Amino acid sequence: MGLIGGGTGSFIGKVHHMAALLDNRIELVCGAFSHDPEVSKQSGPEYRLSDERVYGSYAEMIQTEKNLPAGQRMDFVSIVTPNSLHFDPARLALSNGFHVICDKPVTFSLQEAIDLEKTVLQTGLIFALTHTYTGYPMVKEARHIVKSGRLGAIRKILVEYNQGWLSMPVERTGNKQAAWRMDPLKAGISCTMGDVGTHAANLAEYITGLTITQVCADLTAFVPGRQLDDDGSVLLRFDNGAKGVLTASQICTGEENALKIRIYGEKGGLEWNQMEPNSLLLKWADRPMEIARTGAGKLSEAAVAHTRVPAGHPEGYIEAFANIYRNFADAVSRWKNGRQPDPLYDFPGIQEGLRGMLFLEKVVESSSGSKKWVDMSNDKR
Amino acid sequence: MGLIGGGTGSFIGKVHHMAALLDNRIELVCGAFSHDPEVSKQSGPEYRLSDERVYGSYAEMIQTEKNLPAGQRMDFVSIVTPNSLHFDPARLALSNGFHVICDKPVTFSLQEAIDLEKTVLQTGLIFALTHTYTGYPMVKEARHIVKSGRLGAIRKILVEYNQGWLSMPVERTGNKQAAWRMDPLKAGISCTMGDVGTHAANLAEYITGLTITQVCADLTAFVPGRQLDDDGSVLLRFDNGAKGVLTASQICTGEENALKIRIYGEKGGLEWNQMEPNSLLLKWADRPMEIARTGAGKLSEAAVAHTRVPAGHPEGYIEAFANIYRNFADAVSRWKNGRQPDPLYDFPGIQEGLRGMLFLEKVVESSSGSKKWVDMSNDKR
Amino acid sequence: MGLIGGGTGSFIGKVHHMAALLDNRIELVCGAFSHDPEVSKQSGPEYRLSDERVYGSYAEMIQTEKNLPAGQRMDFVSIVTPNSLHFDPARLALSNGFHVICDKPVTFSLQEAIDLEKTVLQTGLIFALTHTYTGYPMVKEARHIVKSGRLGAIRKILVEYNQGWLSMPVERTGNKQAAWRMDPLKAGISCTMGDVGTHAANLAEYITGLTITQVCADLTAFVPGRQLDDDGSVLLRFDNGAKGVLTASQICTGEENALKIRIYGEKGGLEWNQMEPNSLLLKWADRPMEIARTGAGKLSEAAVAHTRVPAGHPEGYIEAFANIYRNFADAVSRWKNGRQPDPLYDFPGIQEGLRGMLFLEKVVESSSGSKKWVDMSNDKR
Amino acid sequence: MGLIGGGTGSFIGKVHHMAALLDNRIELVCGAFSHDPEVSKQSGPEYRLSDERVYGSYAEMIQTEKNLPAGQRMDFVSIVTPNSLHFDPARLALSNGFHVICDKPVTFSLQEAIDLEKTVLQTGLIFALTHTYTGYPMVKEARHIVKSGRLGAIRKILVEYNQGWLSMPVERTGNKQAAWRMDPLKAGISCTMGDVGTHAANLAEYITGLTITQVCADLTAFVPGRQLDDDGSVLLRFDNGAKGVLTASQICTGEENALKIRIYGEKGGLEWNQMEPNSLLLKWADRPMEIARTGAGKLSEAAVAHTRVPAGHPEGYIEAFANIYRNFADAVSRWKNGRQPDPLYDFPGIQEGLRGMLFLEKVVESSSGSKKWVDMSNDKR
Repeated sequence: MGLIGGGTGSFIGKVHHMAALLDNRIELVCGAFSHDPEVSKQSGPEYRLSDERVYGSYAEMIQTEKNLPAGQRMDFVSIVTPNSLHFDPARLALSNGFHVICDKPVTFSLQEAIDLEKTVLQTGLIFALTHTYTGYPMVKEARHIVKSGRLGAIRKILVEYNQGWLSMPVERTGNKQAAWRMDPLKAGISCTMGDVGTHAANLAEYITGLTITQVCADLTAFVPGRQLDDDGSVLLRFDNGAKGVLTASQICTGEENALKIRIYGEKGGLEWNQMEPNSLLLKWADRPMEIARTGAGKLSEAAVAHTRVPAGHPEGYIEAFANIYRNFADAVSRWKNGRQPDPLYDFPGIQEGLRGMLFLEKVVESSSGSKKWVDMSNDKR
Repeated sequence: MGLIGGGTGSFIGKVHHMAALLDNRIELVCGAFSHDPEVSKQSGPEYRLSDERVYGSYAEMIQTEKNLPAGQRMDFVSIVTPNSLHFDPARLALSNGFHVICDKPVTFSLQEAIDLEKTVLQTGLIFALTHTYTGYPMVKEARHIVKSGRLGAIRKILVEYNQGWLSMPVERTGNKQAAWRMDPLKAGISCTMGDVGTHAANLAEYITGLTITQVCADLTAFVPGRQLDDDGSVLLRFDNGAKGVLTASQICTGEENALKIRIYGEKGGLEWNQMEPNSLLLKWADRPMEIARTGAGKLSEAAVAHTRVPAGHPEGYIEAFANIYRNFADAVSRWKNGRQPDPLYDFPGIQEGLRGMLFLEKVVESSSGSKKWVDMSNDKR
Repeated sequence: MGLIGGGTGSFIGKVHHMAALLDNRIELVCGAFSHDPEVSKQSGPEYRLSDERVYGSYAEMIQTEKNLPAGQRMDFVSIVTPNSLHFDPARLALSNGFHVICDKPVTFSLQEAIDLEKTVLQTGLIFALTHTYTGYPMVKEARHIVKSGRLGAIRKILVEYNQGWLSMPVERTGNKQAAWRMDPLKAGISCTMGDVGTHAANLAEYITGLTITQVCADLTAFVPGRQLDDDGSVLLRFDNGAKGVLTASQICTGEENALKIRIYGEKGGLEWNQMEPNSLLLKWADRPMEIARTGAGKLSEAAVAHTRVPAGHPEGYIEAFANIYRNFADAVSRWKNGRQPDPLYDFPGIQEGLRGMLFLEKVVESSSGSKKWVDMSNDKR
Repeated sequence: MGLIGGGTGSFIGKVHHMAALLDNRIELVCGAFSHDPEVSKQSGPEYRLSDERVYGSYAEMIQTEKNLPAGQRMDFVSIVTPNSLHFDPARLALSNGFHVICDKPVTFSLQEAIDLEKTVLQTGLIFALTHTYTGYPMVKEARHIVKSGRLGAIRKILVEYNQGWLSMPVERTGNKQAAWRMDPLKAGISCTMGDVGTHAANLAEYITGLTITQVCADLTAFVPGRQLDDDGSVLLRFDNGAKGVLTASQICTGEENALKIRIYGEKGGLEWNQMEPNSLLLKWADRPMEIARTGAGKLSEAAVAHTRVPAGHPEGYIEAFANIYRNFADAVSRWKNGRQPDPLYDFPGIQEGLRGMLFLEKVVESSSGSKKWVDMSNDKR
């Protein structure tokens, strides 16, 4: 693996690295850690890389690695840069035969996502998008339960992703993570909806297997001076007639990383909270609520396949992230052997990326318009 | 107190009665428990009333009691009938000099609420509306905290009231509570929004002191054959620029009585759940979440005034309900002495009733229209 | 009902009164609220009693009421005085034909309890002891589940009752509740074990149906100057071979009223917390934990019979207390008709009182001795 | 690092490996995965080791590696075998100049622990014991808070470690983890107290900085046919006069891995649950309970130094384990440079191992004797 981004001071680069290492199937062999060659070089030791595999730019990395012998060169790139710097390295890597795993949202704009989809399809290479939260065992279990029909037809979906770290204008007081997210040139048309709202939308579609067909949104920049949203709520309609609400915020003061989903069907409901990820609440019409737990009792094959330790030994965010990497690595291995990915070891890909960008475009359109419902049709494609 | 409604089989009549009794300030002296004089008579013993004070109709009760000597006749009526039977008895009671405490929503229609407001203002009598949840000590505390400014300016309000008991068409299999709620002739223009949504809207306005100015709603009748909504979600805008979401449902299978509110300001947030009503979560930007508890530590005067037992001895729904009755009784006592109600012992009244009916009218209008935002202005008044 | 104790400033008197009123089956007709006739008289209005039924002493009350006509005189006395003042009024009331409901621990000493048992048996009157916590619906459910065998043979019982209000020497700074509890002349041989430990022991025996046979205790007075324990832990052995731990404390700073029990059998376990009394956790060997809830789904007849409102409308301490009163009142009614108490409406009585006093005597003996195990045999009787 | 134990089917071997890898500071270079050379060889690929570094025995590994050039040979061994196989490889490794990280309890017997301590002291090498739970950030925070004096003098300590997986005689139906733990020849004098009780005792001493001075224990083998305990409870006395209870069980049916500690001082209390490890409850005499959270707000330097991701991204068991490995690796690095370990990056060592073995010996002695208190003095040393 070669890392693009993740230079000194980056949080998410280190997380990708730990996630990649955890299962001893992936090795970091090179990196282009910053667009600034100096910073890139300085970051090498943080990743225990020797100088010759630390590159001044991703283009240099892709070109140089391509010419290394097969057993030696990187197999894939991992892209952990701001949104505006996803598309170019992804396309260049794919065009040069490297698989790609990329942070979300997949691109800067819907158009880029449409173009990237073409490249992925043309090259036939593996593309993964780190919607981390789909990697949790209890999310796999939730998806399995909905699919099994135990809840009956799904009617109502409440998904929320609330944080509080942007309650104050920290982007103007040195917080780099905040600065690029609030910069339209780096983040795109949205801050909060792109940063966390797309995770929430993805989770809702992933667990239910349903598709959002219409949105009605109200986005806000509460902190004066912001050009992009720091909060938003969206009424949702799904393809089977289900209704829902998605609310995402980064000004919910005191909230840490409160991604939570509740899904109700005719016969039962479920609830999952990312901050206590090893419990899955199952609610029934006329019998006690049950709490399914990672590693405990009889769970689905999918949940078991994404669990590392016995029940009661909490698995967390890094493990969920590692599940995405492990599954991506598995797909890459299978690709080498000419095999399709194993559906048991699934991961989000370019289609999920495209859905996310479409969602973003439509909620921004809805929020600024006076029409009640905006269709989630991709008229650009 | 004279009870109107609450005949054999009624749940809410018994609750009103227990709430009225708890503090030994109110005595049930008569009742017209049903529009069916037979049923009314049969219900008397359930309330330990002797026959002569059990009436065949509320009209008979009001007329007869009016002619009793002062120390003997009822002071007020408590109305616990379906929505369609609130206005007439309330007006008749007020017109004959009796104070009124009434279940919510206040009337069948907005127009009735407007008319009732006139009667209340003209008679100068005490009118209470049993938005029970405002009676909890920790709701009083939450209101106090917002008012104190500790959270800073309020930005985001998430309020939800989810139940599951109408997931199946129980109104067609003998559930009387469901039957009248789903009957437009008895319930009015809404089932779920009227039954629980108005509680949620009232709670949001009560705690924050803000006013909802615009709504954008999506109501649904998920169970086939229903004429009224069994679910709905509403985007909210408040008079200070705050935004919010209200979601109310009676088809969230497995939910009991999940009224919950979260309020976020610039400097902090709070969260209260009716099903664990003695805890109030206080969330802060840079220090640990706190859990304020009924009866524990230093709470507001308002919280203390609505608490009966020491910390750790849970107070529940009946106690909250009894707080409404106790405060109403206090206002009635003060009225007799020519005094204004004590603001410390507040309770919802005709204004809150009117807000609720306006809210109902506007969310139904919004849900059926294609306009994005509907103003909460009362153009009928 | 005639109240003995509960004068101005008393907390528990008011609670008994609310509990008695709630179900409209009991009326307070007289009281001897204090050993000080002045205080007793002043307390009358707090209970809305007219002067002629407020007595200067319990002896006067019992004598005077006895001579009133049958329909007018009190049916029973409720004793809410400190421990040293339970035995005399209880015996006097019983001897004069009045039933008795009494706060716990039942008497000042084991010997008194043995003597009182004799009086109860001789008079054949109804005697209730307010181990309030057995009145909760989910405690009834827990007892039912153990009895049904669903957990298999019981092996391990962990019961704890932790409070923090005696962490500081508040008995020396004006706290009357603390003062009598820490006074050996009023409380007896123990403060904390008597005040809360007996509740815990009673709860364990009540739910499991087992009997404690041996104890090994370590009691402590952590706050300097105290003559009685403010903390204690006890290893327990039960008659079926089960083992357990009881820990009770009033110096667990920050704890409110944390009574909690966990019971484990071969096939499952259960957990109940008084501070969230409407949930009962059921734990199983190989399937998800379940949360049984007051009023929800299919519960035992016993749980249903002690529930007032639908699921999700929290019932609390006063309701549990009222269940004891309601059941006692029911037994008194049946007694009048020459019938036995209905086992469905059970309540703790003199036997439970005796067990509590025995437990107290044995844990104090164990704590001060060097023998490992002390038998719970009642060699005094 | 060279792994001793962890062959095919082992759970804990894989956990050690993941923990070692996570921070990219440790590389597995060799292993002796089983006493059966065949099994050892077969296990190599599971760890992605090439054949030449997979050894038939730990003795062979230590000898061979010792002769490899400095940059190539392992720096330390990690011992993950049953208790009876800790001492020999640990001593051999140390004697040959290799540092050791070892699973707990440190040895088979107290005598072995005493002997091992000598070897550690003589060689001056680094020895770590994987009491994993001390690696959690919130445990570090708890220790810091106690040390800071914010809770006042500590009075009461309740620690429990309950599991349910040995409720049935699974050791006789093929569960290898159960089989060796229940075999006195492999586990030593105790199953449950050794397996989980020592963790609990260690946690109590670690967080409080206090020393257990006396124990009074009741151990049980509930499942017929067992030679070693599957459950036990212990009254504790600490060197500052604090009292406590330790309860450990593997027959608490339905419990997963419920390690929990509560500590009460004069001024406040704290509570930590391993199954929700990122929350630390802080309880105060007269203000709301606080919930300190991993990564959130202002925490101690120690907590921050053991945190990898921002607040709300749950860290779990593997991360806690990795903290032990990371700190051990840090100490090894510093040792190479002739420096002392950094106290900020602390980890349990031979002293903690010795305390654990002493605790085991004394609780077993106490449980089988009739003396009430057994001193925790190490008369063998």
